[in-house]
Amino acid sequence: MKVLVINSGSSSIKYQLLEMDTEKVLAKGLVERIGIEGSRIIHRKNEEKYVIEKVIKNHEEGLKEVLDLLTSEDYKVISSLNEIDAVGHRVVHGGERFSSSVIIDKESLDAIEMMSFLAPLHNPANVMGIKAAMELLPNVPQIAVFDTSFHQTMPKTSFLYAIPYEYYEKYKIRRYGFHGTSHKYVSRRAAEILGKDIKTLKIITSHIGNGASIAAVKNGESFDTSMGFTPLEGLVMGTRSGDIDPAIVSFLAQEEGLTAKEVVEILNNKSGVYGITKGFSSDMRDIEDKALEGDKVCRLALDIYEYRIAKYIGAYAAAMNGVDVIVFTAGVGENSPVTREEICEKYLTYLGVKIDKEKNNFKGLERVISTPDSKVTVLVVPTNEELMIARETKELVSTKN
Amino acid sequence: MKVLVINSGSSSIKYQLLEMDTEKVLAKGLVERIGIEGSRIIHRKNEEKYVIEKVIKNHEEGLKEVLDLLTSEDYKVISSLNEIDAVGHRVVHGGERFSSSVIIDKESLDAIEMMSFLAPLHNPANVMGIKAAMELLPNVPQIAVFDTSFHQTMPKTSFLYAIPYEYYEKYKIRRYGFHGTSHKYVSRRAAEILGKDIKTLKIITSHIGNGASIAAVKNGESFDTSMGFTPLEGLVMGTRSGDIDPAIVSFLAQEEGLTAKEVVEILNNKSGVYGITKGFSSDMRDIEDKALEGDKVCRLALDIYEYRIAKYIGAYAAAMNGVDVIVFTAGVGENSPVTREEICEKYLTYLGVKIDKEKNNFKGLERVISTPDSKVTVLVVPTNEELMIARETKELVSTKN
Repeated sequence: MKVLVINSGSSSIKYQLLEMDTEKVLAKGLVERIGIEGSRIIHRKNEEKYVIEKVIKNHEEGLKEVLDLLTSEDYKVISSLNEIDAVGHRVVHGGERFSSSVIIDKESLDAIEMMSFLAPLHNPANVMGIKAAMELLPNVPQIAVFDTSFHQTMPKTSFLYAIPYEYYEKYKIRRYGFHGTSHKYVSRRAAEILGKDIKTLKIITSHIGNGASIAAVKNGESFDTSMGFTPLEGLVMGTRSGDIDPAIVSFLAQEEGLTAKEVVEILNNKSGVYGITKGFSSDMRDIEDKALEGDKVCRLALDIYEYRIAKYIGAYAAAMNGVDVIVFTAGVGENSPVTREEICEKYLTYLGVKIDKEKNNFKGLERVISTPDSKVTVLVVPTNEELMIARETKELVSTKN
Repeated sequence: MKVLVINSGSSSIKYQLLEMDTEKVLAKGLVERIGIEGSRIIHRKNEEKYVIEKVIKNHEEGLKEVLDLLTSEDYKVISSLNEIDAVGHRVVHGGERFSSSVIIDKESLDAIEMMSFLAPLHNPANVMGIKAAMELLPNVPQIAVFDTSFHQTMPKTSFLYAIPYEYYEKYKIRRYGFHGTSHKYVSRRAAEILGKDIKTLKIITSHIGNGASIAAVKNGESFDTSMGFTPLEGLVMGTRSGDIDPAIVSFLAQEEGLTAKEVVEILNNKSGVYGITKGFSSDMRDIEDKALEGDKVCRLALDIYEYRIAKYIGAYAAAMNGVDVIVFTAGVGENSPVTREEICEKYLTYLGVKIDKEKNNFKGLERVISTPDSKVTVLVVPTNEELMIARETKELVSTKN
């Protein structure tokens, strides 16, 4: 079975074609700057990379180009579009409606569109991708895999805010959490690597990259997570503030003559380590490099970034009354031995965490980095959201048939 | 030495007169509804309570009544105002300027007034009380003791938000923390009770009442605390939301047609357990009673209240890389064996916390409630902010002389 995975942004389409018998990626790529000058496709097949510059007006044109590439004489990986058995779409917000992936029909597509009021930047783009794929591959099942659905198992004590209850009833304001596909993938993978039944484990998954969130995964289910109603809450990120005193929003609105919406835009786009370093960089690689060279501002930003991660790990250890496994993943989690070591050594030895510094000194591999006598097993598991989407797609299509 | 302690609110004055040689309270009371119909004074001397109803137009009139009471034929505890050696004032916000208590002079009074932009509901009222006392007791030293000053030892990693750095420089937006006098008092008292040097301890103090905050006290100094730029952040409180996704402020402003300021007023006054229980009560005693009778909404509110406390305790254990002592204080902390037990048993046994349920079954006393083999010592220490203010006042006056 071959599955095409699509992740549409407002002006981009990321794609992967996978052979699910072997879980091998046949081709992958990115259509970028859709509807903007300088649109292009970066296509990869095995180790080869092709860049095709071309005017691409909309998502349907973009996806058409991708499908042509997959079957074209020059770049082909399949001989006909008939070989595509299913399409799996990443959808950011599934609200309370979707606690698992679904085969998309008229009703569920309408529901995904309706969820746009909760994710105005993301769901409309996801819908554009879905509609383009339905148009171009009309006889192929389309599946939606939601960033939020893994977290739908959270108990009310985790997901309810202490605000007037009517706002939950009226607007569904609650904690949803995001990066669900990643937290699900790496928690399952960690249990597999350790040869343990995930139903017996208390796992804390740290998806830390430019966007960042942590989840408490108890007995295989999401129990709590740091992103909330939107992806702004929780950890310090590249440009996002994470947790702040909500009174700061009104204080800044008043002092700076801004609307609440404009303040929240600043909290999303001009804050995080970018804000702390006065605009130096939103990329943790830059921050870490400078910090290690002795730059004080970058050292402070890195310290705050790590401190806030450590506090969430501590909070979730209490939430589950214990922790067996800590998983690091995503850009920083996979590639920064320094950040992993500093979090564990400065803050977590009270939990019995012991890191093997030699074993920790690598990038981008699956590996246990704690010592054999560490009370908590610490692992790095590179995330693979596309594979997880493809697996869920395969499972749904197979169950249906 | 006799010290008068004054805590002025916008329409009230709380007072205590203490004999500092014995730390005995000679008299105490409350002037309430100042400038409002139905103003009155509730005065207590030993076990006796007097209620005097009287028109009181402003803070100066209110304080004049108090001074008259203290020296009057009927209620007197001192024969002349000359016996008052110093006045200690509670001041809510000391900004970054005041990291300890000060003798009030023209310059520091101006600074306290200037801090009103950070605490518009509190500092102006505190200033009214100070000015009234300066007027009526012109030759007596007046001391300001700040709610924020204990937390001025927090490192930048704890107090800085990940927002554009210019907002810290321009408006001093940062974590200040409150309830400092209480966190200081109970952490010191806990070390005394245990016969240990506070400089060797990692203590987490849970001041949980209608207002609620937690502090990580490392080697005797505040290292982090849950209230932030304002007293809105952190734990779920009687009517305050505590932590939420800051994007909820702009979402609600837009959907409900409110300004950011109006949303934050809702988060301060209509949220917390009051909001969760749809306005049933903001008093944890009511919530707990109903929860124990089986009411599901109150049980949920109590669960969320406890869960959020437990998560902060976990977070601060990570912040200090360990915890030796946990202290419960304030309304709920001192008087609810149920809440103390549920927090410790449901969430904290992974830290080696063991509660002695028999020992825990009391209200309002100083007592160790953990078992001898508990890895973390858990205590209840009734807070006494007035005594702490009086002590700091005595110390400052004695040092000066």
